[in-house]
Amino acid sequence: MSTITSLSNHQVRLASRPVGPATRANWSFTTEPVAEPGPGGVLVKTLYLSLDPAMRGWMNEGKSYIPPVEIGAVMRAGGIGRVISSNNPAFAVGDHVNAGLDVQEYCLIPEAQIKRSGMFKIDLRVGSATQWLNVLGMPGMTGYFGLMDVGQPKAGETVVVSGAAGAVGQTVGQIAKLKGCRVVGIAGGQAKCDWVVKELGFDACIDYKAGDVKAGLKEHCPKGVDIYFDNVGGEILDTVLTRITRGARIIICGAISQYNNTTPVKGPANYLSLLVNRARMEGIVVFDYADRYPQAIAEMAGYLKAGSMKSKEDVVFGLETFPETLLKLFNGENFGKLVLQVAKE
Amino acid sequence: MSTITSLSNHQVRLASRPVGPATRANWSFTTEPVAEPGPGGVLVKTLYLSLDPAMRGWMNEGKSYIPPVEIGAVMRAGGIGRVISSNNPAFAVGDHVNAGLDVQEYCLIPEAQIKRSGMFKIDLRVGSATQWLNVLGMPGMTGYFGLMDVGQPKAGETVVVSGAAGAVGQTVGQIAKLKGCRVVGIAGGQAKCDWVVKELGFDACIDYKAGDVKAGLKEHCPKGVDIYFDNVGGEILDTVLTRITRGARIIICGAISQYNNTTPVKGPANYLSLLVNRARMEGIVVFDYADRYPQAIAEMAGYLKAGSMKSKEDVVFGLETFPETLLKLFNGENFGKLVLQVAKE
Repeated sequence: MSTITSLSNHQVRLASRPVGPATRANWSFTTEPVAEPGPGGVLVKTLYLSLDPAMRGWMNEGKSYIPPVEIGAVMRAGGIGRVISSNNPAFAVGDHVNAGLDVQEYCLIPEAQIKRSGMFKIDLRVGSATQWLNVLGMPGMTGYFGLMDVGQPKAGETVVVSGAAGAVGQTVGQIAKLKGCRVVGIAGGQAKCDWVVKELGFDACIDYKAGDVKAGLKEHCPKGVDIYFDNVGGEILDTVLTRITRGARIIICGAISQYNNTTPVKGPANYLSLLVNRARMEGIVVFDYADRYPQAIAEMAGYLKAGSMKSKEDVVFGLETFPETLLKLFNGENFGKLVLQVAKE
Repeated sequence: MSTITSLSNHQVRLASRPVGPATRANWSFTTEPVAEPGPGGVLVKTLYLSLDPAMRGWMNEGKSYIPPVEIGAVMRAGGIGRVISSNNPAFAVGDHVNAGLDVQEYCLIPEAQIKRSGMFKIDLRVGSATQWLNVLGMPGMTGYFGLMDVGQPKAGETVVVSGAAGAVGQTVGQIAKLKGCRVVGIAGGQAKCDWVVKELGFDACIDYKAGDVKAGLKEHCPKGVDIYFDNVGGEILDTVLTRITRGARIIICGAISQYNNTTPVKGPANYLSLLVNRARMEGIVVFDYADRYPQAIAEMAGYLKAGSMKSKEDVVFGLETFPETLLKLFNGENFGKLVLQVAKE
């Protein structure tokens, strides 16, 4: 049997499958002793967890791109941690790592999982821990490969991105600008819109809460929309479909407006615009590009170092706030990449 | 002024824009004298007109891939005719041509239109006049380029096509079989299903009128659907979306189930299956491939000659039947490519 440490591990587990938004009643809080790692394994102390819209999908029963979180299991989450005990020569105590840590204070990672999961060391000189969950992490990779591989932007094209101030959106917009595109964001509220225009250099941003997205698209995309990076689905997707150009590409990355639905998902009624415009709508799942993350991270790190890319994270402290903090994603309250800080080093 | 011939031309004009299905009240019938062609022009006697689902879209106001038919104008249609008078060295009296003839007995085609419209001579030794409106015509070209260029089938993949017994569907299914795919049709009624399986060699066909399309897909596409060629939209598109494979391609060619809607088009509620499956939905408009028609026609003519491709046309005689004959497309009554025969040579 493994040796038990003196540490105790607070965990957040999925207690029941939510109907609509997940409430505190869908979660249970447990405390367990922490064991020393086995041969080849490591013990990681969780510092920051990435909170992402996709997590809502993992709570549902049924087949998706990864299996659902089982009832009673610690909620799945990726994050940044510090190695505090290691039986693996690739990781030393004190190393900072990006790994599937789940919503808990300590994560014991067996050798098999290290081999399988793409756990990797991060260099805090390249980016801060929270940047490693944002532009240098899964959202950044999603934005990068979604835009570049699926969208294939050409200089001079018009790129529209929804959830523009979110983790994926800020990456997409900034890369598109760096590639010479006209970039128009869609976000909720004046503060987010101002930020993506003034700080990130988007050409314009449409405040969907203030009103007419269609009029905004007409004004800010006078030549139409060549690429639409969709994080939200619903009415906004339908509206953008009326403004696409011949040969447009729509990247389906998410549909946050639909994830808490208790009614059926609203399909894009204007999908026949794909026919009229010989346009394409295509899904992206970031894991497919895992072998190319290093190349994308290097490119993004170069932009960060040169000051040509910025990032914003919305950091909330405290494991116990997880249920409420997660909801910020779905009511649009987060401003920047949402991160749960679990410990201060 | 042009010389007037002794002929008189019966025409069908769009009298008003239909709401829902076009009824006889939406059409007007006119009779006009026929002029001799001007310099470089030809006069063509209409023999056969192609009746296509897309015609319903042309009757609506508003931007689409081609302008709408104006109120009072002769209804737009492509067809096969015989040149009866020519001032153009490229066309001799007696030549059979494929051209935009419109719903009328005679069509005077000025030189400018000949240059612009891709009017071309057909060889009745290669295929019959009605085959030139079917597998050798626009439906055949649509099926060919939609499947081959947008769908990019690989041998061993499973291809599903709706409207399987229709003009586009029969072409798509037969080409997919010739390319080594498993082919499953979706059609309305046992007779059509039997025909595509027994005569055209599809592996299976699901009768959507008889019941459960989802169960049919499970049974006949055990490895899922790699390519779906969609002619119908609506519930069938949504059902197929639940059965697609990773990297699937959905070709949006039409949505005949939605064309007569007086309520909004039903968008595909299951479109997030594109995300989960990293799949793609893309529109096709055949005109984009005009410079490659000769190559595709040559390939199809080869199949016809070798007996490895069959075609079926549903020919109705009489210009005056146009309003009712067109409706056969929308209630699923046509069996094979719907053709209106206007004259017997």
